[in-house]
Amino acid sequence: MSSQKDVVTFGEVMMRLTPPGYSRIRQTRSFDLLYGGAEANVAISLAHFGVPVEFVTRLPANDVGDACMHFLRQYGVGLRHVVRGGERLGLYFLEMGVMQRPSKVIYDRANSALATTKPGMIDWRTIFGQADWFHWTGITSAVSAAAAATNEEAVTIAREMGLTISCDLNYRHSLWQWGKRPPQVMPPLVQQCDILIGNTAELMLGMAPVTADSAEAAAYQMCEQLAGTFPNLKIIVITLRDTISASHNTLSAILWREGSFYTTPTYTLDAIVDRVGGGDAFMAGLIYGLRTFPEETQRVLDFALAAAVLKHSIAGDANLVTVAEVMELVNGRSSGDVSR
Amino acid sequence: MSSQKDVVTFGEVMMRLTPPGYSRIRQTRSFDLLYGGAEANVAISLAHFGVPVEFVTRLPANDVGDACMHFLRQYGVGLRHVVRGGERLGLYFLEMGVMQRPSKVIYDRANSALATTKPGMIDWRTIFGQADWFHWTGITSAVSAAAAATNEEAVTIAREMGLTISCDLNYRHSLWQWGKRPPQVMPPLVQQCDILIGNTAELMLGMAPVTADSAEAAAYQMCEQLAGTFPNLKIIVITLRDTISASHNTLSAILWREGSFYTTPTYTLDAIVDRVGGGDAFMAGLIYGLRTFPEETQRVLDFALAAAVLKHSIAGDANLVTVAEVMELVNGRSSGDVSR
Amino acid sequence: MSSQKDVVTFGEVMMRLTPPGYSRIRQTRSFDLLYGGAEANVAISLAHFGVPVEFVTRLPANDVGDACMHFLRQYGVGLRHVVRGGERLGLYFLEMGVMQRPSKVIYDRANSALATTKPGMIDWRTIFGQADWFHWTGITSAVSAAAAATNEEAVTIAREMGLTISCDLNYRHSLWQWGKRPPQVMPPLVQQCDILIGNTAELMLGMAPVTADSAEAAAYQMCEQLAGTFPNLKIIVITLRDTISASHNTLSAILWREGSFYTTPTYTLDAIVDRVGGGDAFMAGLIYGLRTFPEETQRVLDFALAAAVLKHSIAGDANLVTVAEVMELVNGRSSGDVSR
Amino acid sequence: MSSQKDVVTFGEVMMRLTPPGYSRIRQTRSFDLLYGGAEANVAISLAHFGVPVEFVTRLPANDVGDACMHFLRQYGVGLRHVVRGGERLGLYFLEMGVMQRPSKVIYDRANSALATTKPGMIDWRTIFGQADWFHWTGITSAVSAAAAATNEEAVTIAREMGLTISCDLNYRHSLWQWGKRPPQVMPPLVQQCDILIGNTAELMLGMAPVTADSAEAAAYQMCEQLAGTFPNLKIIVITLRDTISASHNTLSAILWREGSFYTTPTYTLDAIVDRVGGGDAFMAGLIYGLRTFPEETQRVLDFALAAAVLKHSIAGDANLVTVAEVMELVNGRSSGDVSR
Amino acid sequence: MSSQKDVVTFGEVMMRLTPPGYSRIRQTRSFDLLYGGAEANVAISLAHFGVPVEFVTRLPANDVGDACMHFLRQYGVGLRHVVRGGERLGLYFLEMGVMQRPSKVIYDRANSALATTKPGMIDWRTIFGQADWFHWTGITSAVSAAAAATNEEAVTIAREMGLTISCDLNYRHSLWQWGKRPPQVMPPLVQQCDILIGNTAELMLGMAPVTADSAEAAAYQMCEQLAGTFPNLKIIVITLRDTISASHNTLSAILWREGSFYTTPTYTLDAIVDRVGGGDAFMAGLIYGLRTFPEETQRVLDFALAAAVLKHSIAGDANLVTVAEVMELVNGRSSGDVSR
Amino acid sequence: MSSQKDVVTFGEVMMRLTPPGYSRIRQTRSFDLLYGGAEANVAISLAHFGVPVEFVTRLPANDVGDACMHFLRQYGVGLRHVVRGGERLGLYFLEMGVMQRPSKVIYDRANSALATTKPGMIDWRTIFGQADWFHWTGITSAVSAAAAATNEEAVTIAREMGLTISCDLNYRHSLWQWGKRPPQVMPPLVQQCDILIGNTAELMLGMAPVTADSAEAAAYQMCEQLAGTFPNLKIIVITLRDTISASHNTLSAILWREGSFYTTPTYTLDAIVDRVGGGDAFMAGLIYGLRTFPEETQRVLDFALAAAVLKHSIAGDANLVTVAEVMELVNGRSSGDVSR
Repeated sequence: MSSQKDVVTFGEVMMRLTPPGYSRIRQTRSFDLLYGGAEANVAISLAHFGVPVEFVTRLPANDVGDACMHFLRQYGVGLRHVVRGGERLGLYFLEMGVMQRPSKVIYDRANSALATTKPGMIDWRTIFGQADWFHWTGITSAVSAAAAATNEEAVTIAREMGLTISCDLNYRHSLWQWGKRPPQVMPPLVQQCDILIGNTAELMLGMAPVTADSAEAAAYQMCEQLAGTFPNLKIIVITLRDTISASHNTLSAILWREGSFYTTPTYTLDAIVDRVGGGDAFMAGLIYGLRTFPEETQRVLDFALAAAVLKHSIAGDANLVTVAEVMELVNGRSSGDVSR
Repeated sequence: MSSQKDVVTFGEVMMRLTPPGYSRIRQTRSFDLLYGGAEANVAISLAHFGVPVEFVTRLPANDVGDACMHFLRQYGVGLRHVVRGGERLGLYFLEMGVMQRPSKVIYDRANSALATTKPGMIDWRTIFGQADWFHWTGITSAVSAAAAATNEEAVTIAREMGLTISCDLNYRHSLWQWGKRPPQVMPPLVQQCDILIGNTAELMLGMAPVTADSAEAAAYQMCEQLAGTFPNLKIIVITLRDTISASHNTLSAILWREGSFYTTPTYTLDAIVDRVGGGDAFMAGLIYGLRTFPEETQRVLDFALAAAVLKHSIAGDANLVTVAEVMELVNGRSSGDVSR
Repeated sequence: MSSQKDVVTFGEVMMRLTPPGYSRIRQTRSFDLLYGGAEANVAISLAHFGVPVEFVTRLPANDVGDACMHFLRQYGVGLRHVVRGGERLGLYFLEMGVMQRPSKVIYDRANSALATTKPGMIDWRTIFGQADWFHWTGITSAVSAAAAATNEEAVTIAREMGLTISCDLNYRHSLWQWGKRPPQVMPPLVQQCDILIGNTAELMLGMAPVTADSAEAAAYQMCEQLAGTFPNLKIIVITLRDTISASHNTLSAILWREGSFYTTPTYTLDAIVDRVGGGDAFMAGLIYGLRTFPEETQRVLDFALAAAVLKHSIAGDANLVTVAEVMELVNGRSSGDVSR
Repeated sequence: MSSQKDVVTFGEVMMRLTPPGYSRIRQTRSFDLLYGGAEANVAISLAHFGVPVEFVTRLPANDVGDACMHFLRQYGVGLRHVVRGGERLGLYFLEMGVMQRPSKVIYDRANSALATTKPGMIDWRTIFGQADWFHWTGITSAVSAAAAATNEEAVTIAREMGLTISCDLNYRHSLWQWGKRPPQVMPPLVQQCDILIGNTAELMLGMAPVTADSAEAAAYQMCEQLAGTFPNLKIIVITLRDTISASHNTLSAILWREGSFYTTPTYTLDAIVDRVGGGDAFMAGLIYGLRTFPEETQRVLDFALAAAVLKHSIAGDANLVTVAEVMELVNGRSSGDVSR
Repeated sequence: MSSQKDVVTFGEVMMRLTPPGYSRIRQTRSFDLLYGGAEANVAISLAHFGVPVEFVTRLPANDVGDACMHFLRQYGVGLRHVVRGGERLGLYFLEMGVMQRPSKVIYDRANSALATTKPGMIDWRTIFGQADWFHWTGITSAVSAAAAATNEEAVTIAREMGLTISCDLNYRHSLWQWGKRPPQVMPPLVQQCDILIGNTAELMLGMAPVTADSAEAAAYQMCEQLAGTFPNLKIIVITLRDTISASHNTLSAILWREGSFYTTPTYTLDAIVDRVGGGDAFMAGLIYGLRTFPEETQRVLDFALAAAVLKHSIAGDANLVTVAEVMELVNGRSSGDVSR
Repeated sequence: MSSQKDVVTFGEVMMRLTPPGYSRIRQTRSFDLLYGGAEANVAISLAHFGVPVEFVTRLPANDVGDACMHFLRQYGVGLRHVVRGGERLGLYFLEMGVMQRPSKVIYDRANSALATTKPGMIDWRTIFGQADWFHWTGITSAVSAAAAATNEEAVTIAREMGLTISCDLNYRHSLWQWGKRPPQVMPPLVQQCDILIGNTAELMLGMAPVTADSAEAAAYQMCEQLAGTFPNLKIIVITLRDTISASHNTLSAILWREGSFYTTPTYTLDAIVDRVGGGDAFMAGLIYGLRTFPEETQRVLDFALAAAVLKHSIAGDANLVTVAEVMELVNGRSSGDVSR
C-alpha cells in the first residue's frame, strides 16, 4: 500500500504481568496482561505514526505465542518475518511504583524462544531487502550468548546492505548473566550504527566516566566522547530524567548531530501513569522525525521528546499516540483540556 | 413533600462510555457506563443539595431509555415530565486525559431522541406551572434545528410565566452542524435571561474579543460588555481555569451583580479525577446559593466555586456532594484528612 | 505468503456492548466491548482457520473506527480494502439471555458508515481481482437502500468475475425499515449464488411455507423448493436448532448438494456461553471445508456443524477456534476433559 | 400520575454483599453490592410491573442509608414514607451456591435501624390513606420484639382501614432470637390477612404436619387446613420446589381460592443465576395479577409462577422484568432465542 | 496446638494464570491468579479439614516466591520446611473449558525452583520426625531428573522412618521430557506405598491393559492386578469419571482394601465451576477419613468422593470446604438450597 | 524457628469495605475488601519486617471470621491466641478521599466480637509468657466498657510480667460512646508504658493545650509535658502531618528519648494511594528499630518515618514493605525509578 521501505526492529517481546492499580504482587489476585519489549514498543509506536514497520522475533508455537501475535498485530505492526519455535515466551512481572516506592521488574525470561534463537534461524537478507532502517537495542545481547550472536549477525548484514542503523543501549542490570560483560560485546556493534541513544554509555560501552557540574554538561561531554570513539555515528542523543518520585519526574534531552548540539525545554511529568517504554517512545519519535523531516533537527528532537512525554500518560509499554497528538504537544496547542 | 417550587432544567442526556482508568478507546475491552449531560448534571447536583428539581428531556422507549431513567432517578431527580419517543439515545465516548494528554470526547448524538424533539412535544405550561426557575444551556441549540426551536419555545414560555432563567453558554466546537452559527441563535435567548455563565461569549454571542493584561482583567471587561448588551442580566459569572495539564488545573471565578464585582481565591486542582461537569457543578452551586441565601452574593459565589472544585474529585459527570460537604470546603474545615 | 486467493466478505461491523455476566442493561455500570457483525465474524473465523480473507466495510475516520480496525486486525483479518468515512460506527446492545430469559439485541445502527455506503465507493474490481470467493448476507440489504445497492453491486461484479458466491439469508426482524421487503430484494441476488444457508427462506425469499411432520422433513422440502427456484445453487444448507432455553439448545444441519442430501447427528448445547455468531461459525466452517476438501461433502458438513457447536462456548461474536480444535470434536477425540 | 392507589410493603432492606462469581467469602477480595430484602424485592418487582408502590422502612441517616435510598429509588419504588434514624443498616453476606454446594447466607442484621423501630415511629394512617393493599412477611417479626410490635401495629391498622392484606410466611431459621417462637406471634396476624403464601406453615403457624404421598398432595391438605384455621383467607398459595442441586431446581405452585384449587405445570430451572428472591417475585406477580385481572385466577397463578421462574435468571434479589416479558413466558412465545 | 503428628506433602506449586470467565488466552487482557499444584492442593484441603499439614517445596527467593508463600499460608498450610532458592516459580496457563470445548493447560515449568531441587537440599529426617504420613504424586518425578531423585529420596526415608505413604499416580502427558519413562521410575516407589490412587496405572506403572465390559469391571481387575504386583499396598482406589462435556461429568469410585471392594453411587456433576484439583480433593478426603475413622472403610470412601464432588463447585485448584460441608453432602442433607 | 520472643499486639480487626477507585458509597456496585485495624496493621508490618508477632483479638466463629483469619495469616502474623466467639465482625466503610475531598470512614463496629470481649476471656499470662513486647492503642478502650476493661487487664499483666509496653493514643472522634471520656481511662494505662506516640494527647490524656509558633515547637513542648506527667515513658514521638489536600500531605516526626530530641526531614507525600494506617506503619517501624538497633535513636526514627512514608503508596491498611525497601528510602537510594 505504501511505497515506503520498512523499518525493521528486532528483539524479545515478553508477556507483561502487572497487578492492577498500585497493588503489590503479594496482594494481587489478578494480573493485567499485555505484551511488550523495547524493540516491539518502538515498532508499535512507529505503526501508530504510519511508518511501515516489521518486528522480527521468535515466538513459541503455542496459544501464548499466538496471543502475543494477536496483541502486536492489532496495532498494525508487520509480523511477516516472525519465526515460530522455542520452548516458552519470556515474561516479566511489573509492580507499578508510585510516590517514593519505585516500580519493580522481575524478569522470568531465561530459555525463552528469543534467548534460544541462533544465527541462521532468521533470514536477514530477505527481511532487509524490503527495508531501509534497522533498529536494535542492547537488551538482545544481554539475554543470552545465542541471542547476542544473532543480534550481531543482524547488525552486520544490515550494515552490509546499507540500511540506516539505530541503537538504544538500554542497560539492564539484572541481565548479562551469560558470561560476557557489555563492553566486550557492544562497541563493535555500535561502531556500525548511525544513530545512538547513549544513556549508560559507561556501563555498556566502557566509556570513561564524565564529571561535570550538571547532568547537561556531562551529557555534552559524553556525546563528544562517543562521537570521537564511534566515528560512524551521525546522531547521538542523551535523555535527562530527574526522578523526584515514581510519580513525578522531569524529562529533557540533548542531541548531537555532526558537531552541533540541540536541546529541549524540560517537561514536568506529574501523575505518571506508566513510565515503562518512555525511552522506546523517544526512539520511535526520533526515527519518525528523521524519516519525515530529516533536515529539521530541532523539530526531530522536539517531536521525539514530546512523544516520550505522552508515553508516560499511556498504560502499557507502548506509545499509542498519533503524529497529530504529538504535534499538538510540540506546538503547545495541547492544553490538557477536554477536546469536544 | 417540599413546599418549594421546582427548578426545571432541559436538555439532552447521553450515555457516556469511558474506558476504565486512563486507557484509550483503542486499548479497552470494556467501558464504564453512566448517563450525563450538562442540564442533567445540574439537576443531579441540585437534587443532592435538596432542591426540588425536574429534568425535562426526551428518551427512546426502549431498555436503554429505561436504564437512563433509572440512573437519573436514583439521585432523586424528578422525571415526571420526561417524554418517551425517538429512535435512539445519544451517546458519547470519553477518553480520560492525564498529564499532558488531554481528555477526548467523541460525540455520537445525531438523530437522538432529543435532537428530534420539536416544539409542541413538551407541555411547557404545565411544567412551568409548578416551577419558579428554568435553567438551560447553549448545547441544546447546538444539537439540531428542531432542538434549538424547542429550546427557544421553552425560554420564551418561561419568560412569559415569570420564572427566573439561567443559562450556561457551553460552547461545543464539534456541534453546531445544522446550519446556523451560535451568534445567529443565542443572543435573543440570552436577552431573556437573568443569570449567565459567560465563558466563550465571543463564540456564542459574537461579543467583541477582549484584550487585557490578564485573564481576570479580560473577564471584568467581558462582564461589562455583556451587561451592556443584555440589560436583563442581573448576574454574570466568568470562571477562570488555568490548564497546566489534564491532571493539574487552577480554578477561580468572578461574578458581576448589578454593577458590582465579586472574586474568589484560586484553588489548585491537582490529581484531578474527572473534570467533566465542573461547570455544571458550579451552576448548580450558584442556583442553590441564590435560592438559599440570595442576598449574600459573596457566599453564593464561594459556594458555587467550592462545589465546582469538589466535582473534580468525583468520578462521573455529576457532582455527588452534599451542601454540608461544600460548606466544609468553603469554611476551610475540610482539611482533606480522614474523617473518622 | 500464501499462494491462495482471498475469500472476501462484505458487511457491517458494529460495536457490541454487553453487560457483564447476565446483568440487564438497567442494572449494569459497565459494558464488555467488542466488535462484530455477521460477515466480519465469518472473516475472523476463516482467519483462525488459516484462510486468507479480506473483510470489506466502511468505518468512520475517528478513534472508534481505529479501535474497530485494531480489533479485527488482531485476529489476522485482512483490512486492505476497508474504506474510511461516514459519521459513525453502528452499535448494538446485547443482553445475554440465560434460562427462560432470551437474549435481547437493541440495534443502534442507523446512519452508520456502512448504511451510508453507496455504489462506487468501493473498488470491487480490484478487490475481487485477488479473490476467488465472495461471501455476503441478507443483513447488508436490510440496513439501508444505499447499502442494499452497494451489496447488489458487489454480488453482480463478483458473479461477472467468476468468484464462488455464498450467502447466509440472516433475517433480522427489526431491520428492513428502508422501504422494501426482503422478497423484493433478495431473490435476484440469490439467483447469482453458488451456496446458500437457507434458514428463513419464507421471509427472505418469499418461498412457500412448508408443512411437514418434523423440522427435518420441512428442511428437506425447503431445500428442494430452493433448488428448483434458484438453479445456480450447488449447495443449500439448513441448520436445525431446538431452543429448550437460552442456555440449552440442540443443533443439527442438513445439506443438499446437487440432488443429494447429507445429515448430521444432533449436538446437545448445554451451558451455552454465547450463542451469537453460531451461524457465522457454521458458514466459516462450510467455506473452509469446501476449499480444503471440496469433494468430501459429509466431512465438510460435519466440520461446519462442529465449528458452530464450539462457537457456543466462546464469549463474543466470532469463533476463535482452530482447525485442529474443530477436527478433535468431529473425530470425537475431544472429550471435554482437561488437556495437560 | 396514576390514579391507582398504592401498594405498600413494609420490612427490612439490607446491604447484600456477595463474592463475585462462585467464590467463597474466604477467597474473595471484593464483594458485589446491592440492597435487598423480601418486602423491598416485592416493591421493586411491582414498580417494574407499573404498579404504584411505596416501600416503608427505617434507614440510618448516613451515607450507607443514602446509598440504599438511591438503589431502591432507581427502580421507581416510592420512598415517601421511609423514616431515617437508627444506628446501622443490616447487612447479609451471600455465598452463591452452585452444583451440590448450597448458597449460604450469613446475617449481620442485629440492632439495625429496622430492628430498633418501635410502634409510633411510622405514621401508618397517613401511609394507608393513599393505599389499598398492604404486603408484609414473617421476617419482620423474626427480627426483634420492637419490629414485631411495629409489624403488628401495621397489620392492625391496615385491617381497620380496609386494605387488602397479603403475607408471605418466609421462615428464617437463623432469626427468631428475641424470645418468642413464630407460632406465638404469627397466627393472630395471619388471621387478618386476605392472601397467604403458606410454605412452612408448620413452623410459622404451628399447623399440624401433613403426611401425603406427594408434595402436591401435602400442599392440597395444608391449604385446606389453613383455610379452616384462618377463615378470612381468600387465597392461599403453596409453591413447590424440588432442589436437585443449587443450579438445578424445578418449580410449580398450587393455589386455593375460596374452595377451588388451581395448578401449574412444572418448570425446569437449570443454570440458575440467582435463586434469592424467587418467592418475592412470585408474590409480586400474584399481587399484579390480582389487581389487573382479578377474576382470572388461573392466569393470575400462571403469571406469578412465570415471574418467579424468570427471577432465577436475574442477578440480585429483585425481579427486574416487565409485564411483557412475563407474558411472553406465560404464552410460550419466549423461546429463549435471541430477539433481534 | 494439636497433638496430632503432621501429614507431609511434597511437590511443585505453580502460579496459575487463568483468563476470566471462559475467555481464551488469545482474548484476554487479564489473568486471574492463584497458586496450585497437586500436592499443595491436598495440603490446603487437609488444612481446611483441621489436619496439621506441612507442605514441602522449593520456592525462589523473590517477590513471586513470597506471594506464593502468602497464598498457601492463608489457608493454614504449614510452610516451616519450605526451602527458598532456584531461579523461578513454575507457572501454568489454564483456559477453562465449557460445553464441548475442553480445558487447556499450557505448562511453563521448566527450570523451576522445584525442578532444580536435588537430593540433600531438603532435611527429610527432621521433617518426618514430626510426621506420621507422607503424600506424594507422580508429577514430581515427571518434572526433571533432579526432582525425581529428590522424590525418591523422600519416599525412601519416609519408608525407613515408618510413615504411612500415599501416592496419586497423576499421569501428565506433556511432562516426562527428561529421559526416562514412568514405568522406569514409578514401580519401585509405589512398592514402598500403603495407599494408591491407581488411575492411569498402565501408563505410569506399565500394568497390563485391562479389557472389560464396563469401566467398573476394568477398575476391579486393575485393583487386583495392582494388589498382586505391589503387595505392600493396603488400599487402592480408582475413580471413574465420565466426561459428557467440559461442563457435565459423572463421578464415582471403587476402593479395594485388603481383598474387599467398596463402591459408591455415581454423582452427576453439572454446571462444573472448576474441574482442576478434583483428584487432589479426593485424596485429601481419603487421608482425612483414614486418619479420623480408619476402620469405617465405606464412610472413608463416601467422604472422599463427596469432597471431590464439592471441589468441582469451587473456583481454583484447592478444595476450600470444611468437614461439616462434606458431611452434609454425604448424609444427603445438603439439598443445594439456600441456607439462611 | 526464631529464638526471638514475640511482640504481642491486641485490638479489633474489622472488615474494610472500600468503593473501587475514588467512587463514593452512593455510586458503587462493589466494594474492595480487606481486613484491618490499628493493632493488626502493626502486626502485619512487623511480620513483613521478620519480627515474630502474635495478634490477639476475638473473632466470630463463622465464615467471616475465618476469612479474616485467612487474611491475617497470609502475611505471617501469628494467630495462636485468637479467641473465637461473639456475634459479629466489626466493619467499616471507607470512601477514599482525593484532592479537596477528604476520606470518610463510617464505622459499623458496635456489638462486635471484640467489643463484647470481657476480662478473663483471654489468657494473658500464657500469651505474655512467650513475649517481651506488648503494643496497644487507645482505640480498644474507645470501643466499649468491656473492651476497655480487657485492655486494662492486658496492660496491667504485661507490666507485671515486665514486657516493654508501647501505646499509640489514636483518638477516634466517633467512638467513645460507652460512657467515659478518654482522660478518665487513658492516663493510668499510659502510666504503665515505656513508649508513646503522643499525638492528640490533649484529647486522650487531658494534657494542657500547647501554644507555640510552629507545630514543631508545640510538639517539643508536648513531649516535655508528657515526660513530666508520665515518668515511666522512655520514648515519646509526635508525628507532624500537614494536609494540603487528601492527595498531598507532608510528614515529619520528632522523638524525645530520656531528655534528648531527635528530628527528621520533611517528606512530601504526593499522589497518595492510601493514607489509612500511616501511623501504624510508623509504630511498626519504631518497634522494629528499637528491637534491632536499639541504641541508634536517630536511625530508629528515620526508619520509622520512612516506613510511614512508604505506607502511603500501598493500597490497604497495612504496610506491605520489607526492611530492605525501607532502608533504601532511608539511605536515599530509592530514586523512585524502575528497578530492573
